[in-house]
Amino acid sequence: MQDPAKKYFRCNDSERAVFEAGIKLGTIYHQFVGTPISAENIDVLEKSIEESIKVQPFVKSVNVKIRRDRIKKKKGIYKYLTLTGDMLDVELVVEYNNTEAVCYLKYIEEMKYPLMYIGEIRVK
Amino acid sequence: MQDPAKKYFRCNDSERAVFEAGIKLGTIYHQFVGTPISAENIDVLEKSIEESIKVQPFVKSVNVKIRRDRIKKKKGIYKYLTLTGDMLDVELVVEYNNTEAVCYLKYIEEMKYPLMYIGEIRVK
Amino acid sequence: MQDPAKKYFRCNDSERAVFEAGIKLGTIYHQFVGTPISAENIDVLEKSIEESIKVQPFVKSVNVKIRRDRIKKKKGIYKYLTLTGDMLDVELVVEYNNTEAVCYLKYIEEMKYPLMYIGEIRVK
Amino acid sequence: MQDPAKKYFRCNDSERAVFEAGIKLGTIYHQFVGTPISAENIDVLEKSIEESIKVQPFVKSVNVKIRRDRIKKKKGIYKYLTLTGDMLDVELVVEYNNTEAVCYLKYIEEMKYPLMYIGEIRVK
Repeated sequence: MQDPAKKYFRCNDSERAVFEAGIKLGTIYHQFVGTPISAENIDVLEKSIEESIKVQPFVKSVNVKIRRDRIKKKKGIYKYLTLTGDMLDVELVVEYNNTEAVCYLKYIEEMKYPLMYIGEIRVK
Repeated sequence: MQDPAKKYFRCNDSERAVFEAGIKLGTIYHQFVGTPISAENIDVLEKSIEESIKVQPFVKSVNVKIRRDRIKKKKGIYKYLTLTGDMLDVELVVEYNNTEAVCYLKYIEEMKYPLMYIGEIRVK
Repeated sequence: MQDPAKKYFRCNDSERAVFEAGIKLGTIYHQFVGTPISAENIDVLEKSIEESIKVQPFVKSVNVKIRRDRIKKKKGIYKYLTLTGDMLDVELVVEYNNTEAVCYLKYIEEMKYPLMYIGEIRVK
Repeated sequence: MQDPAKKYFRCNDSERAVFEAGIKLGTIYHQFVGTPISAENIDVLEKSIEESIKVQPFVKSVNVKIRRDRIKKKKGIYKYLTLTGDMLDVELVVEYNNTEAVCYLKYIEEMKYPLMYIGEIRVK
């Protein structure tokens, strides 16, 4: 893997890896929050978010779950909702050269906040 | 189909149908423009946009095509793009009571503009 | 006002006016829901949403309020929120030829839903 | 500055700083690309993007320019455009404890790509 953008960066490999991870998590939140959802389209939306992240550089793997337990049940023709940040549960692994960053977007109950955080940085 | 929101509206059925269609086309454009795309995720993104529109009220059918001919070919790890309005080709049918509105979002070459328009209103 | 897109439409003026209104309300919701907000940036965000709608065709006036009473107070560095549909209170007037459509996006308490609706269509 | 989220992170201060910077740059791109713009609302949109980023944690400063030279001139009622990534020119400084990360989002002509990159990491 050769990186044509390398000359623009002033940082080491682990800093680069988590920077790229931050971009992807910001992308997931701000591109897809607001999308109409109901029981019928959750599966395809999870898949679609994952695939849109995988096309970006340096993504080794990504797993997106929309938390069914945070979707309030409603009835009738206005029963659908739109995606909110607290429904998102994401695990993302970014790989840059020999460094991998494992990062998350998860709703943290005690903070009442959908936190994006770095769970591990590992050198292979 | 009973409409719990009916009392808020001051309009006839055809006006209601095209109003609902306008909302959905605005949703498609402004929710999904900016989504990262490449050859690998176009199919699932088309499907995901369709499904997110179908969960909204009064949608009879929706067909979303992302125009491959408007995606510029690039190589390497920065080869992906993000979705722009001129790539979208949408046919949407909204049904309200006995009225159907057939509406479109299409890039119009002579206007250089992704136009949303009403192609037909029909009473069954 | 001459409309270069007129030939694509099969509808009367009031249908056109509410179709355009629907597009704008869908735009407001799906472009801006998810935007980070706190007490410091609400005023400029309201203004920015209004101005982005005014550049679109056939908008006579638009008034956007973000409901302070629906913003939960939080403290500390994670105190900010992101915009949700239930905070939006919009009045929009679209004008097409001699017809005006007055439309709204408001959170309706009894429906627990941010409803977009047509309040009045008037011919001048 | 006390960070209630600190216990979730496994990284040093410079990694944290650039991770936070990545999130903010991803936010700018994916929240605001697609927003309708013309000469009339560019100033307020720049201001609004800046203010929405400043409410997020650890942002020391942010400067957003929308490049007028990349906005194609059009005439008439369909003359407005929507914001694209190549129009964005952003300088962002994130501060975490004693570390500052200076990061950018700029359209790089030779890559034909709106690149987000780390320009400098400094310890005070």
